[in-house]
Parts: sequence; C-alpha cells; structure tokens
Amino acid sequence: MKVNGVHYKTIWMESAEVLMIDQNKLPFEFSIHRCSDYKATCRAIVNMTVRGAGAIGAAAGFAMAQAFMSKADTEKARLEINSTRPTARDLFYASEKVFAAGVHSPALAQQAALDIALENENAGRNIGILGNELIKPGARILTHCNAGWLAFVDYGSALAPVYAAHKAGKNIHVYVDETRPRGQGARLTAWELHNEGVPHTIIPDNAAALLMAKGMIDMVITGADRIASNGDAANKIGTLEKAILAKHYGIPFYIAAPSSTIDMNTLTGNDIIIEERSQDEVLKQTGIDDHGNMHTILVASPGSPAYNPAFDVTLAELITGYITEKGVLTAGHLTPSLSS
Amino acid sequence: MKVNGVHYKTIWMESAEVLMIDQNKLPFEFSIHRCSDYKATCRAIVNMTVRGAGAIGAAAGFAMAQAFMSKADTEKARLEINSTRPTARDLFYASEKVFAAGVHSPALAQQAALDIALENENAGRNIGILGNELIKPGARILTHCNAGWLAFVDYGSALAPVYAAHKAGKNIHVYVDETRPRGQGARLTAWELHNEGVPHTIIPDNAAALLMAKGMIDMVITGADRIASNGDAANKIGTLEKAILAKHYGIPFYIAAPSSTIDMNTLTGNDIIIEERSQDEVLKQTGIDDHGNMHTILVASPGSPAYNPAFDVTLAELITGYITEKGVLTAGHLTPSLSS
Repeated sequence: MKVNGVHYKTIWMESAEVLMIDQNKLPFEFSIHRCSDYKATCRAIVNMTVRGAGAIGAAAGFAMAQAFMSKADTEKARLEINSTRPTARDLFYASEKVFAAGVHSPALAQQAALDIALENENAGRNIGILGNELIKPGARILTHCNAGWLAFVDYGSALAPVYAAHKAGKNIHVYVDETRPRGQGARLTAWELHNEGVPHTIIPDNAAALLMAKGMIDMVITGADRIASNGDAANKIGTLEKAILAKHYGIPFYIAAPSSTIDMNTLTGNDIIIEERSQDEVLKQTGIDDHGNMHTILVASPGSPAYNPAFDVTLAELITGYITEKGVLTAGHLTPSLSS
Repeated sequence: MKVNGVHYKTIWMESAEVLMIDQNKLPFEFSIHRCSDYKATCRAIVNMTVRGAGAIGAAAGFAMAQAFMSKADTEKARLEINSTRPTARDLFYASEKVFAAGVHSPALAQQAALDIALENENAGRNIGILGNELIKPGARILTHCNAGWLAFVDYGSALAPVYAAHKAGKNIHVYVDETRPRGQGARLTAWELHNEGVPHTIIPDNAAALLMAKGMIDMVITGADRIASNGDAANKIGTLEKAILAKHYGIPFYIAAPSSTIDMNTLTGNDIIIEERSQDEVLKQTGIDDHGNMHTILVASPGSPAYNPAFDVTLAELITGYITEKGVLTAGHLTPSLSS
C-alpha cells in the first residue's frame, strides 16, 4: 500500500537483508529498519518493530532463511525464532516450513520464506476482493484496532475490503476506534487510511454505541488473532463490546482474517487463554508534544492499579460472517488452512 | 470525604470567599483554589477548576451571594454567572434562587447559597444510604466517569452508595472505567477511591464486556447529567455502551442522581442535545512524566480527524433503577424535584 504516494510492503527481503517499516516509530516517523542477520530480525520481532500476525509470520520465515543463508547454527536459530513471540501461531508455521526447506539448501529456505510472505500478501488481496462484495456504496464502516496492511505483508485483513471498496469508488467512510490502551486504531489504522486517502474519523472507544444509535454505522469489520473451530474469535480487547453493540442495533459484524487464523485444534473460545499485559499500558501514554519531542506521561491517578487484558473472545453467535481468502464463511462452516 | 486522611468538601464558603478543590490540578496535585469575588468564582466555573453538576450549582449560588455581599451590580452578575456553563441545569436553579433571596438582603442571599450546597450534600448522603441497600457483600461494581464527591459538594451520586457500602464493611471492589477521552474515571474516580481506601482497579473502557463475560461484575452504577421524564438518561459518552453490555449479560444497571437531575420538561432522550467537544480531547493527552513535569502530547496519527461527542443517551429500558435521595425509582415512576 502507499506511504506518501510511494508503494511499500510492511516487510520484505533484499538479498540477505530483511527490511521492514519500523512500527515503533509510527505514526510520528516513517522509517525503514534493516536487519542484516537472523538475530537482528528476532530482535525486531521481540521489540515489536514488526507486529501483527501476518507480518510476524513473514519475519519469522525470513529470519529462518537468514540463518541458513549465513550458515548459522540453524537448530539454535530455530529455537531463538520460536521464542520471540511464543503465542503467535503464524510464527511457528513459518519458521518450521522454512526450516524443513532449508535442510535441503539455503536457496530453498529463502524461496520458502518468500513464498510464505507472498501467500500472506495474496490472502490479503483476496480478502479485499471478497469483502468488497459485502460493502454497499456510501457505507459507513466501523473498525477496531489495526488489522490493516501494517499487520500483514500487504493489504491487511479488516482493512483489505475497505481499500478495495475505496478503489472501486464506493465513497465509503471509516470510523476508527481509538483502541485503548495501546491506541492501534488512532495510531496505525488512521495512519494507513490517511496515507491511502480513505475518508475516516477517529472516535473514542466509548462513542461506538452512540454512532450506532444515530444510524451512523452500516457495518463493523475487525480482524482476529485466532478463530476457534466453532467460530468464537479472539481479537483485541474491546472487539467483544463492539460485537454486542452491533447485535443490539442489528448491524452486521464481520471478522476478516486469513484462513490460517482458523485453528481447528481450538474447539471453542473457552480454550483461548487471554494474555494480560502490563498495567503501565493503561496508566501511561506515549506521544509527541508540539515541538515533536516524545514523552511518556502518566494519565491516571498515581497509586491506583489497572487491569490490562490484551484480548477478548467474541462468541460465534455475535459474528455475521468470516471474510477469508477462501470465501465468506459462517460459523459451523469454517475450513482450516494450516493443515492443508 | 477524605484527602490524605483529612475531611474536605469539594467547594465551600469562608466569610465572603469561595474555596474549592482545584480539579484542573487533580490527580497530580491537591490544592485549594480561593475566589475572593463573584468574578473569580465565575472564572473557576468557566475553566473547570470546579466541575460536575452539583458542584457547579453550589459554585453558582455562592457566586451570586458574593455579588450581593460585595454590593456589585447583581443584575449584571446574574447574567455573567448564567453564561459560564450554559447547559448546566443546577447552575440556573442556584443562581435564580439566590438572586430571589438577595433582593431582600445579602445575608439572605448567602443563607440561600449555603442551603443549596447543604441540600446537595444531603442528597448525596441519602443516595448513599438508599443505594447501599442494593449492594450485596463482596459486590464487584463497575462505574463510568466521575460521579463521585468531586462532582458534588460531598458524597457524590454513583459513588455515594459505594462509600456507604465500604464504610459498612461490605468488602466491595470497584472497577473504574478509564472514561476516554478526558479520563475522569482514571483521574478523578480512582483518586477519590484511593483517598477513601476503597479497593479498586482502573480498566480500559474496552475491557468492560470481558469482565462481565467472566462474571467479574455484579452491578453497574453511573451518574447522569439529565434524566428525561420517561427515564432516558444523558450521561458521559460510553454510558450507553455499558448499559447495553449489562443488559446482554443480565447485570443490574443503576443510575444514581439527585432528583434535581430529573427534568420533567424533557419528555424523552430524543429531546436532549448531545454536546460535541474539541477533537483535541481525543487526539491529545495531558499528564506528568517521571520527573513530575506536565506535558500535552499527540497520541494519534497526525492529520487524522476525530469526533468527540461528550454525552450519550441511555434508553430507560436499559436502566434497572434510579437511585435518588427520595428513593430508588423505576422508569414510569420518576418524580421531579426542581418544581417542588
């Protein structure tokens, strides 16, 4: 997708180097981070220079390929890569696939890694094409968190249909949930939409019900981190709230995700463990002042504790459909992909 | 209520001076702001040194009394006071009542102002006593925004039952919605509860549904800015979301407010105009860094617009009951008070 009018992918390889958009510096600074060896790529995953399931998967594949190409201890590298973000499903898929190919030759390892990245990009493109068919001209779409191209290699999941509809001239408008505590909506989704020229408005997470009550939202599309075989979907904290509100107001609520997100080994949402993150993400905020200087500030009463669950699980009964690269599915008709 | 173990009210009078807790400096600094004449008190209302319906009402009454006591042009003062926060219902009630008394003597004006403040304090105390009867031992209570004693002269509305239950040794726990964009939950409610020693946890507004789904919330209590005669209630943006979530999970949702909040001239929530505030409240945040220095920082993508509706309207059908100083009422049985 475009940044300042130039086409970029989130992450890519140039000979033996891995290059990626530095997502820790967004939205205030756009810069490319270079990783000259697999260890540097691992560090980029750990410190979230690259984030989002699809982009992390591509990074893991690239890192594994780098290990083979530099004749590093690939068994050790495999363990290091797999321990960067231990809950990321796409990460293991990528590292294992590239490891299996690399046993034959470094060139095959690199080809496997490039294939994984391309597969992710193609999934995003197809989610866009299929999701676009659900979007009516003039639609006002609510989204939560960032499931845009920055979370994948390109196109994204929840935002892929948005980009397709915008390109098709459908005159859409996107309402972007701020997505506290980390603000991925206000920071990353808004940045993506701004760069693509898609009309959009950031709203506080608290305002979604008011907009729905006023008839200002036609559909909701979010991504998912994992979809259980029964259709329950884990995604960024607050997704469940939007799904309940959408049901209350009779508004369609879609999950858009590559079919690799569907985990047939997870039977229901009850089997998904909710990660609890540091309370500082709630109590503090980071941003730039009027002079462009970065500060981290306390925005809550000193001495009060906070609870920071990172995800919630939206039950299948609240989800209108699942927009995957294989088609728009409904709960009860989910098809796995990683096993394919 | 207590601050560092010492009892305070939100606003009070000492001879001809009006004193108030400076709420612009909370939660990072506790200081008392003194207003030596009615103009200073008006400025304190305008710049939100004092905020919250009940506290603003008391401030307006005190300002009107100051005008009479200093032999100012009281007609001019009345207009000035009434234009400080033009949508605050309690403000007009107070200024008009004190004006009517002041026509007879400055002493009667001051007495009328003191009576209004005392009336507000007593309403809070009684809301606490009546609301406490609804709270079971060990209850986990969710609240939104700040309807605590800082918004009134003392005790508060939504938090008055919380304080009463805590004093009664009921071993309660309060989950405090951060309440973006202005963060009154994280900043003011948490500060109040911390000072009173009430166990509490700040949560992102996005986390309420997860807590409800996990059975961690037994009841919701919020305040209200205005209650229509049919029971629809306007309150801080996000209140509607919590009410819909509570209904979805079968959790009681109470509005606590002095009966003066019930406006029999407003037939339904449709008649309540939603104030739209500056987008900077969404896009920027103010707080202190590790060295105690205050900064205002941008926390969103530069160039993206935001929408900032200040209130929403919760329909009566979502509200279990209204905790007023006159009793716990249900929609269809609301009694006005300003007309009494």
